[in-house]
Amino acid sequence: MTGQSIIDRFSSLLGSKGVITDRDDIAPWLTDWRGRYHGAADAILAPANTQEVAAAVALASETGIPLVPQGGNTSMVGGATPPADGSALILSLRRMNHIRALSPDDNLAICEAGVILSSLHDAAAAVARRFPLSLGAKGSATIGGLISTNAGGTQVLRHGTMRALVEGIEAVLPDGSIFEGLDALKKDNRGYDIKQLLIGAEGTLGIVTAASLRLVPAIAARAVGWIGVRSPDDALALLRLAETHLGDSVEGFEIIADDGLGHVLSHIPGTRCPIGTRTPWHVLIEVDHADMSEPGPAQRLESALAQALERNIAVDAAIAANDAQAEAFWRIRESLSEAERAQGPALQYDISVPVARMPAFMVDAADAAERAFPGTTASSFGHLGDGNVHFHVRAPKGTMDGPAWMAAQGQAINTFIHDAVAAVGGSISAEHGIGQMKRAEFGRLASPARIAALRAIKTAFDPKGIMNPGKLIPRPDEG
Amino acid sequence: MTGQSIIDRFSSLLGSKGVITDRDDIAPWLTDWRGRYHGAADAILAPANTQEVAAAVALASETGIPLVPQGGNTSMVGGATPPADGSALILSLRRMNHIRALSPDDNLAICEAGVILSSLHDAAAAVARRFPLSLGAKGSATIGGLISTNAGGTQVLRHGTMRALVEGIEAVLPDGSIFEGLDALKKDNRGYDIKQLLIGAEGTLGIVTAASLRLVPAIAARAVGWIGVRSPDDALALLRLAETHLGDSVEGFEIIADDGLGHVLSHIPGTRCPIGTRTPWHVLIEVDHADMSEPGPAQRLESALAQALERNIAVDAAIAANDAQAEAFWRIRESLSEAERAQGPALQYDISVPVARMPAFMVDAADAAERAFPGTTASSFGHLGDGNVHFHVRAPKGTMDGPAWMAAQGQAINTFIHDAVAAVGGSISAEHGIGQMKRAEFGRLASPARIAALRAIKTAFDPKGIMNPGKLIPRPDEG
Repeated sequence: MTGQSIIDRFSSLLGSKGVITDRDDIAPWLTDWRGRYHGAADAILAPANTQEVAAAVALASETGIPLVPQGGNTSMVGGATPPADGSALILSLRRMNHIRALSPDDNLAICEAGVILSSLHDAAAAVARRFPLSLGAKGSATIGGLISTNAGGTQVLRHGTMRALVEGIEAVLPDGSIFEGLDALKKDNRGYDIKQLLIGAEGTLGIVTAASLRLVPAIAARAVGWIGVRSPDDALALLRLAETHLGDSVEGFEIIADDGLGHVLSHIPGTRCPIGTRTPWHVLIEVDHADMSEPGPAQRLESALAQALERNIAVDAAIAANDAQAEAFWRIRESLSEAERAQGPALQYDISVPVARMPAFMVDAADAAERAFPGTTASSFGHLGDGNVHFHVRAPKGTMDGPAWMAAQGQAINTFIHDAVAAVGGSISAEHGIGQMKRAEFGRLASPARIAALRAIKTAFDPKGIMNPGKLIPRPDEG
Repeated sequence: MTGQSIIDRFSSLLGSKGVITDRDDIAPWLTDWRGRYHGAADAILAPANTQEVAAAVALASETGIPLVPQGGNTSMVGGATPPADGSALILSLRRMNHIRALSPDDNLAICEAGVILSSLHDAAAAVARRFPLSLGAKGSATIGGLISTNAGGTQVLRHGTMRALVEGIEAVLPDGSIFEGLDALKKDNRGYDIKQLLIGAEGTLGIVTAASLRLVPAIAARAVGWIGVRSPDDALALLRLAETHLGDSVEGFEIIADDGLGHVLSHIPGTRCPIGTRTPWHVLIEVDHADMSEPGPAQRLESALAQALERNIAVDAAIAANDAQAEAFWRIRESLSEAERAQGPALQYDISVPVARMPAFMVDAADAAERAFPGTTASSFGHLGDGNVHFHVRAPKGTMDGPAWMAAQGQAINTFIHDAVAAVGGSISAEHGIGQMKRAEFGRLASPARIAALRAIKTAFDPKGIMNPGKLIPRPDEG
């Protein structure tokens, strides 16, 4: 519990709009959006600008009150949920939602941390540009949260993760000082890259308050294709062939197991398989051009796919005839999680391995999991070109009580899958971060040198431990 | 001075080939290659592998002997020169010169730190790939040094600096532990990015021993053009026009002041101006395709330049008719530093500012410098698209004693130029790093929050201060 006198001190810094203490107003922000983590906090601090963030952090540092930075509260790993003991306050960035500058000539946008991703998409589109990162939570997720979790999505193959799109950063460090690094310098070799350190730090080293973000030209012409293949090996061969023919214009390349497709067709109304043949695996590809030069993306994709069919890499292929069909192809990919939920309880893993090892991993790890946990089925889908898939282990058919199955089997299956990932040099968190959900497993599997380096940095930046406590850094008993 | 008994202990770890104590063998490595810094060391440690590096660092940590990591000794800022008091030992990575793996299918090379850049270029070319970073010192500079200084060059516009090309890293941390991060994961959100922290750290946080590096397809077709323009503003407009027409295939875009061109034509035999008109500014552009698709780069560049001439952005333009002509265009750019040296003494600055501000900066800062220091002439050339130029202030005509002029005027001119850079949110070190040369100026101009963050990280990683002492981190009296 935070004392009233301390909350009054925050109020005097942030004004009445800047401190929310009504329990009903606080409640929605105490639970992560998947409903797995529940915290407590006596107040939400909602500063209106960077100076107010700095003042709030300085007071938190002085009084030793931990702060949990929060944007859209869309963490997949409990990264923005306060501790259950009510010792911390939430610091919400949602009031800081201005796009400070939008410069199409320079392909730059300067956004405050609370700008919602879809708002940035709209603003960029209005000046014939785009911000090339998107994900399911785009209507809620904020720029600050996307930076602090180094978010990915389906366009990483071409444009990289958030890490590659942030050109400058402004942040409040744990002592309340302001790190002013918004100037977008393409080359800057003045020592350690503090910007890169804050990206993906999950709010444990400070609070990102604004960023300069890279825009790219709007899409002038696109082509979306669906290809049936026999194996993940063939899917990777198809990606390499596509890269040779289409170069940097391959914007999306997603692999989908046929069982996942089947679940979409069963559970999502209005979906149908884009090709006539049901193959064991499927690929969704998008090719984008920023100009109208000939040959356009459809023609170039067609010639690449003709060669893939001829070389027997692909079994069947279709190119969307129009935008509606393209959206229908993408809708299958985007409905996979929902269809899997409808299908039944499953444990889901967000993992990466080196790209070349991914085809074998997808097959071998699924086989091994099904053998080790009889009755389960395992399969994966996702960003093959990034070496990142979402790997699902489904409860045995007929399992009625999902939570009970997870309680009984969850930890053993987690250990099994994470060990398999570690064995091929992979990461147990490709996109979602560590938060509180993966902290113990991270501690168990990471090398002592990596954990020691993380702890040293954390202590150096935040000696009082006030920034997002309980997230990311394994506890002493966790490795 | 390092005691003999301690050198004996290093010898027992590294063998006789691993410890060089002959003064003649050590001498060349005690001075930076521009001859500005002179150090002393009783031995060069030359470990043969990562385990030996780890053992040597552990012993250094135990005994408190500072180490100066060294690759090709091509630092522009005295970053690899040991302290003059002889308290440190050099740790050379040059024996670790194996390319551990070369995987064209995955576009990856795993190189030890001592691999020379041109060796990697050759190895990649042999498998129809290339490593898209090059610079003048490529015959000496090593991968470890290029990573530790986040090197740039003329291909950054398209491919980024070293930071964008390192996919994985192996390093020995200051306590002798090995950070094993060679697995090239395109997505990995397990906490702070230690890899990015080590890139550009100038050996002050540990020793990079190997890296996984990104390769790209070999060039199948190229076009090189020379364009005369009226101003840096028009040069930037030309870049934007080229990007619209040619997209990602613009690999190089260099701006050259006409006086710099004049010095090349005067001092470098066999050079001639590629266009018939002498304009105030010139642009060198290279467009590369990885495939032979039509229209090829020459045809596309021609159509872009036609539009630039029509819109009066360009005054005159030429496209190289063949490879020999393309090399002749590039030779002008690459001879600029040599020609400037032949022209007379000059102070040289490696600076960056936000791209949009660079045209005005190039004109205004040169005018201001010439007014403030009568008799001097100032001009710049370099990577306009990266917001990075090499800015030269030349001694007044007839200055015979360059060193005396620099001793008298150097500090005042440094301050003047660096202040101008800082005033527009730029960096006093775009490519070369801080080393010992720019340490005091960095301390003077950087914000207290940035310096505090750097010092905190340094202390966290290297509490005993044994890694490359005296480099990068401003001393207490320096800000």
